[in-house]
Amino acid sequence: MLKKVEKNKKLINKKTINVKTSFPNSKKIYINSKKFKNVNVPMREISLSDSEIKNIVVYDTSGCYSDPNINHDYESGLQKLRQEWIKKRTGISESQKQNLKFLNHSKTVEPFPNTNQSIFKKKEKDEITQLFYARNNIITEEMEFCAIRENEGREQLIGEKFKKEDLVTAEFVRKQIALGEAIIPANINHTELEPMIIGRNFLVKINANIGNSSVLSSVYDEVEKLVWAIKWGSDTVMDLSTGDNIHEIREWIIRNSPVPIGTVPIYQALEKVNGVAEDLNWEVFKETLIEQAEQGVDYFTIHAGVRLHYIPLTIDRLTGIVSRGGSIIAKWCLAHHKENFLYTNFEEICEIMKNYDISFSLGDGLRPGSINDANDKSQFSELETLGELTKIAWNHNVQVMIEGPGHVPMQLIKENVEKQSSLCGNAPFYTLGPLTTDIAPGYDHITSAIGAAMIGWYGTSMLCYVTPKEHLGLPDKNDVKIGVVTYKIAAHAADLARGNKGAYYRDYVLSKARFEFRWRDQFNLSLDPDTAENYHDQTLPAEGAKLAHFCSMCGPKFCSMKISQEIKDFATEGKKEMSKKFKKAGGKIYL
Amino acid sequence: MLKKVEKNKKLINKKTINVKTSFPNSKKIYINSKKFKNVNVPMREISLSDSEIKNIVVYDTSGCYSDPNINHDYESGLQKLRQEWIKKRTGISESQKQNLKFLNHSKTVEPFPNTNQSIFKKKEKDEITQLFYARNNIITEEMEFCAIRENEGREQLIGEKFKKEDLVTAEFVRKQIALGEAIIPANINHTELEPMIIGRNFLVKINANIGNSSVLSSVYDEVEKLVWAIKWGSDTVMDLSTGDNIHEIREWIIRNSPVPIGTVPIYQALEKVNGVAEDLNWEVFKETLIEQAEQGVDYFTIHAGVRLHYIPLTIDRLTGIVSRGGSIIAKWCLAHHKENFLYTNFEEICEIMKNYDISFSLGDGLRPGSINDANDKSQFSELETLGELTKIAWNHNVQVMIEGPGHVPMQLIKENVEKQSSLCGNAPFYTLGPLTTDIAPGYDHITSAIGAAMIGWYGTSMLCYVTPKEHLGLPDKNDVKIGVVTYKIAAHAADLARGNKGAYYRDYVLSKARFEFRWRDQFNLSLDPDTAENYHDQTLPAEGAKLAHFCSMCGPKFCSMKISQEIKDFATEGKKEMSKKFKKAGGKIYL
Repeated sequence: MLKKVEKNKKLINKKTINVKTSFPNSKKIYINSKKFKNVNVPMREISLSDSEIKNIVVYDTSGCYSDPNINHDYESGLQKLRQEWIKKRTGISESQKQNLKFLNHSKTVEPFPNTNQSIFKKKEKDEITQLFYARNNIITEEMEFCAIRENEGREQLIGEKFKKEDLVTAEFVRKQIALGEAIIPANINHTELEPMIIGRNFLVKINANIGNSSVLSSVYDEVEKLVWAIKWGSDTVMDLSTGDNIHEIREWIIRNSPVPIGTVPIYQALEKVNGVAEDLNWEVFKETLIEQAEQGVDYFTIHAGVRLHYIPLTIDRLTGIVSRGGSIIAKWCLAHHKENFLYTNFEEICEIMKNYDISFSLGDGLRPGSINDANDKSQFSELETLGELTKIAWNHNVQVMIEGPGHVPMQLIKENVEKQSSLCGNAPFYTLGPLTTDIAPGYDHITSAIGAAMIGWYGTSMLCYVTPKEHLGLPDKNDVKIGVVTYKIAAHAADLARGNKGAYYRDYVLSKARFEFRWRDQFNLSLDPDTAENYHDQTLPAEGAKLAHFCSMCGPKFCSMKISQEIKDFATEGKKEMSKKFKKAGGKIYL
Repeated sequence: MLKKVEKNKKLINKKTINVKTSFPNSKKIYINSKKFKNVNVPMREISLSDSEIKNIVVYDTSGCYSDPNINHDYESGLQKLRQEWIKKRTGISESQKQNLKFLNHSKTVEPFPNTNQSIFKKKEKDEITQLFYARNNIITEEMEFCAIRENEGREQLIGEKFKKEDLVTAEFVRKQIALGEAIIPANINHTELEPMIIGRNFLVKINANIGNSSVLSSVYDEVEKLVWAIKWGSDTVMDLSTGDNIHEIREWIIRNSPVPIGTVPIYQALEKVNGVAEDLNWEVFKETLIEQAEQGVDYFTIHAGVRLHYIPLTIDRLTGIVSRGGSIIAKWCLAHHKENFLYTNFEEICEIMKNYDISFSLGDGLRPGSINDANDKSQFSELETLGELTKIAWNHNVQVMIEGPGHVPMQLIKENVEKQSSLCGNAPFYTLGPLTTDIAPGYDHITSAIGAAMIGWYGTSMLCYVTPKEHLGLPDKNDVKIGVVTYKIAAHAADLARGNKGAYYRDYVLSKARFEFRWRDQFNLSLDPDTAENYHDQTLPAEGAKLAHFCSMCGPKFCSMKISQEIKDFATEGKKEMSKKFKKAGGKIYL
C-alpha cells in the first residue's frame, strides 16, 4: 500500500518505511458533513461476526496511510485537504515560499523535494484563529470536522444505545473553543492536517514524542515513527529533534503528517547558537518561530513561565530542573542575570503565533523530576505565571494549553489539576504522565500510565506518552508502539471514568464478544489485535481454537465463561419453569 | 547456585530450574531479632557508589535462593525454619504423615521424594492461630519476623531519615492481628515459610498466580515460576493448578516455597468428581481441605458467599460469573436448587482451618468480569455475605482476608474499598487488579496496574497480579516476570501514596543516583536492573557511558540534568557572591 521512496536514497538509507497500517477486519470509511461539502471525516469500521452488533466505528488517527485507495508518496506529501478551506478565508494572504535560507543543504539529509508550496499568513488587520472565529460565532470546517470525529459514528446508534443529547455538535465545539476550554491546534500552513480537538469535555487525547538526538536516528526513522505512532492511535506528535538537520526532518514530518505537530522551538534556536545557552537571544528565537510557523508547526512549547526569581527555588530540589527547555532558559537567565526573554517578549510571541493560528503549549520548565520534588513551590509558582500568560494569549485570540508534570505520587495528582484549572481559566491541561514512582526505569510507561489515567480522569485533556526507554535512551519503533498503546489505555480508562458513553460502548462490544467466545472479534476490537492474537496462539494456534469455548489459561473444564453460559441457559429455562409453577401455585413468592 | 535436580528426570523433563536469583551489587543479609534467638530476617542490601548513602536495605521475598551460602536441593525442600517455633508450642500435636492415599501415583509426575515429614495439628482443646495468640497478648516468632521485615533495615537510619515512631514494632503487629485488620498466613505445616503480614497498615503486598491447566505446563514449569515470581518480589503465590497431579505439584511447590501458598480447594474437589460440578458434595470438599491443610497450604480461597438467591442477579449481566470457583458453585446450587454447601458448612470449615492456622481468603465468586458489570447488585450482595462470614471466622479465631474485583472503571473503585471496609470490619482486602478497561487484551497487566495502584492507595492490602496473557492463555515464565514487576510498581506507588516513609526513601536514593549520573546505582536500585541496563546499553553500550553526563535520549547538549547540575553549581557560587554583596550593601533584599 505504501509506495516505496526509492529515489530518495540518501533519505531512506536504502530502507523503506516499513509499517503495516491496516487493522484486521477493519475498513476505512468517511463520514460526510451535512453542513460542509468538503468535510469528510475518516473513521475505522470494525466488522464483527455478531448477529446483533454487526460493526463498530472507532476514532481513526492514521490518516490516508490506512486507506487502500490512496497511493501515498512520501516525496509529495499528503493531500492538502484544508487548502481550499484556508484559501476562501478572506483574512488570509498567500505567498510563495521564500525562506530557503533556512535550508541546511546538509550532506546527510536531502531536503523535502516538493518545495512548490505557498505560505499562508494572516492579513494585517484581520483575525484568523479558531479562537477568534469561535468568539465571533463562526463555525469553521475544523470545528465541524472535530465534532463529527468525537462522535465516532454514534449518530447511527441514536435511540438504541445513545441519546441525541450525547452527541457532540459543531456548536458545542465552537462554544468550548470560545471559552478557551478547548483548542484545535491547526496552523494554516499545515494544510495536510485532519483537525482534532483537545479539551476537558472531549475524548482524552495522547501525544507521542519523536525526533532524533545528536547521538541517534535519521529522517527515515523519524518519518517511520510518525506513521507508526498514528497507526496505534497517537492524536498529535511532537518532533523533539535536536542536532543537525532539524529543519529538513521537520519538513518531511509535517508534509507527511495528518495529525498536529508540536515542537519546542528553543531546541532549534540553541542549535543555531551552537549549543551555548548563554548565546541565545530574542532575535534568533524569533527567527526560529517564524521559520517553524511557515513550515506549519501546529503548537509550540514555550517555556515563558520560568522566571528569573523562581530559579533559586529549584536549587534545593533533589533533581533540579528536568525540563530540557526549562534548564536551557534557566541557564540563560542566570548567566545574564536577566528575566527570561520568552517572558519579556511574550506579547510579540503572541503576535507571531496569531499570524498562523499556532497554539501555545505553555511549557512547565520547572516540573518535578522526582517524587521528592512533586508539587513544590517552584512548580506551582511557574503555574501561576502560566495562568497570567494564558490570559495575555487569549487577549490576542491565540489558543492555549498548559503543560503539566512530571513525577507525582498518586495522592498529590489531583491538586495539580485543581490548581491548573483555577489558575489557567480551564484552559486544556497537557501532562507528561505523571510517573507515580521513580524506582522502575525500564517500565516508566507503566509507572506513568497509572498517573496518566488518573490525571485524565481528574480533567487533563491530553496525555503525553512515556516509553519504556524514558530516562535510559532514545525510543525506537517498538518503544513508540508500546508507549502509544499504553497511553491509549490510560486515555480510554479516563474516558470511561468521565462517563463517556462512546468509550463504554467499545468495552461493551468487546466484552460481549469475549463472553460469546468470538475470539477473532475480541482480538479485532482490542487496541492491539496483533498482540492479542499472538498471545492466544502461543498456546492454542489451531484455527478451531478461535471458536473454542475455553483458552489455555483455564482449560475446558474450568472456563468460568463457559460454565456461566450454561448457567444462563439453565436459569433462563429455570425461570420459565419457575414462572409456570409460580402461576400454578397462585403467585406465592419464590425465593 | 541452584543444584540441578538431576535424579528426578520425570519431574524436570531433563531440564533444570533455570533462574538467575541474584541481583547486581546486592548482598543477602539477615537482621537478627533481639527478642527471639531463632528469628533472623532475610533482607537484600544494595551497595552504592555514593559517598553519602553507601547502601540501602530492601524487602526480600526470594528466600534462600538468593543466598550463595545455601546449596538448595529441590528434592529435599527448604530448611524448616519454623519447625522449632511450632514444636515448642504446647497446643500443637505432631504425628507422622499418613494420608498417602492422596497420592496419585501418576505416570507423568513423580511424588516429592522427601516423604519423611510429620504433620502438625492443633490439640483438641487448645487454640493455636496467630489471631488467638494476638488476642491473648502473645507475641509470636511470626509477628516478630514480620515487624522486622516491614522496617527494611530502617533501624539503622533512625535520627537521619526516620523517627523511632516510624518503625513497625512486634506489638503493633500483634494489635493489628488482634483487631482482624492484618493477617499472617502461616499454616503450621508450612514450616519452610518466611512469615509475612497482610494488612492496611503495612507495605502493600502482591500475589502471583501459578499452576498448570489441563492444556499446558508441568511440575518443572510451576516450580520454576515459583522461584522466578519470588525473585522479582511476589509476596505470596497461589497454586491454581487444575488437571491431573494437583497433589504432587502442590507438594513440590510448598516444600520449596518460602512465601505463603494459597489455593482454591474447589478446583481439586472438582477434579475428584471428574469435572462434573453437579457431583460435588461436602464430603469430597472436606477431604480436600484436610489433604491440603496437612500439606501446608497457608490460605484457602473459599467461595462461601455465592448464595443461591444471588445467582439470578447475574443472569442479566453482560459477562455472567467470571470467577472459576464462583461459576462451579453456582452451577452446583442451580442443579440441586440448594444453598451453597460452603455457606451451610461454613462453621465446620472454620473448625478444620483453625486446626492448622490456615487463613481464609473469602472468594468473590460474583466479581464483575467487565466494565459493564462493575459494582452491581450481585457483587455487593455477595460482599455483604462475606462480611457476615468474616465475623463467624473471627469467632473461631481464624484469620480472614476478603477478595475483591475484577473489572472496575476508575470512578467506581473507591466504593469497593469503602464497602469492603465497613461490611467486613476492616479485614484485609485482597483484589485482582481491578482492570480499568476491557479493550486491551494483551496489555491487561497495564489496564489492571492502574486500578491496582489506586485500590492499594485507597486501602487494599494485597494485589493479585494480572499478566499480559490474561483472557488469552496460560502465562509463561516471562509473563510471570512482567506481571510481578508491574504489580511491584502498583504496590510501591500505593505505598508512596499512603505516605510510607521507607517507600519514599528508595525513590529518593534512586533519583539522587539519577541526578548524579551514577548509572549503575540507578540500575541496581530499580525493580529490574537487567532491563534498565539493557535498555540503556541498546544505544550506548560502552562502559564509559555508565559515567557519562547524558544518555542517547537527549544527547550531551540537551541533557537537562547536566545543565541543571551546572545551574546548581553556578547558583551555589552565585549565592555566596550574592551573600557577600548583600552583606556589603547593608542587607537589602536581593530579588
